[in-house]
Amino acid sequence: MSQFHLHPQLKRDTHRIGALALCDIRLMDNALFHWVILIPRVADCREITDLKPSQQHLLMDEITRVSEAMQQFFAADKMNVAALGNQVQQLHIHLIARKKTDAAWPNPVWGKGRVHYHPFKREKLIGSLRDAMGL
Amino acid sequence: MSQFHLHPQLKRDTHRIGALALCDIRLMDNALFHWVILIPRVADCREITDLKPSQQHLLMDEITRVSEAMQQFFAADKMNVAALGNQVQQLHIHLIARKKTDAAWPNPVWGKGRVHYHPFKREKLIGSLRDAMGL
Repeated sequence: MSQFHLHPQLKRDTHRIGALALCDIRLMDNALFHWVILIPRVADCREITDLKPSQQHLLMDEITRVSEAMQQFFAADKMNVAALGNQVQQLHIHLIARKKTDAAWPNPVWGKGRVHYHPFKREKLIGSLRDAMGL
Repeated sequence: MSQFHLHPQLKRDTHRIGALALCDIRLMDNALFHWVILIPRVADCREITDLKPSQQHLLMDEITRVSEAMQQFFAADKMNVAALGNQVQQLHIHLIARKKTDAAWPNPVWGKGRVHYHPFKREKLIGSLRDAMGL
């Protein structure tokens, strides 16, 4: 049985916020959007259907917990929740707190540009998100 | 307490495949992609977090059941699963069986064009999907 390793591209594109029972929680390094990624720490997992039913329910619980925190923290107009993985095939779930004023609204965020966070601002945001998520 | 009504735009853009305990299953009328929509029959529901925890788990079970059927039926290279709802705010989950040869790969399908099904082909596909999903 192989061990879980975070995919190198997810590692490069995101920064650690914390961990729940199933998933790592990471901030997408794109200051244009309020964008968090959940990654189940399960080896060789590409699809939600690769998880066991109990893990699928736990994933839903963690999506809900992180979504609620983001909705409130960012005063989101809409949450976008998506498992795509066409480019990085390790299962990861995008949680994006959308604002009607954001750079892509009302379209999806993918392919709409990227601006790296200033490291100081990023670390401050990660601290605030840890508090908001009760981590 | 208000009653559930399918949003008029979802009604216009999709065709009924069947129903599970929580969700209606509908085919997106876009022959460019293998694209199905799940809509929980819950009034005034915009976000996954608007569902009760038991409904969230049931939603995950239905996503899994329909995903597995689509994966197999379309020999999908990757499943895309997404709740966006920036334009149509009634909660609906996109399930798209992606192929490396499809019109948008490896990008997301939104905004990548639309070709209506020929009605005869559409009804035949809906019949086959009902069988594949065990409806």
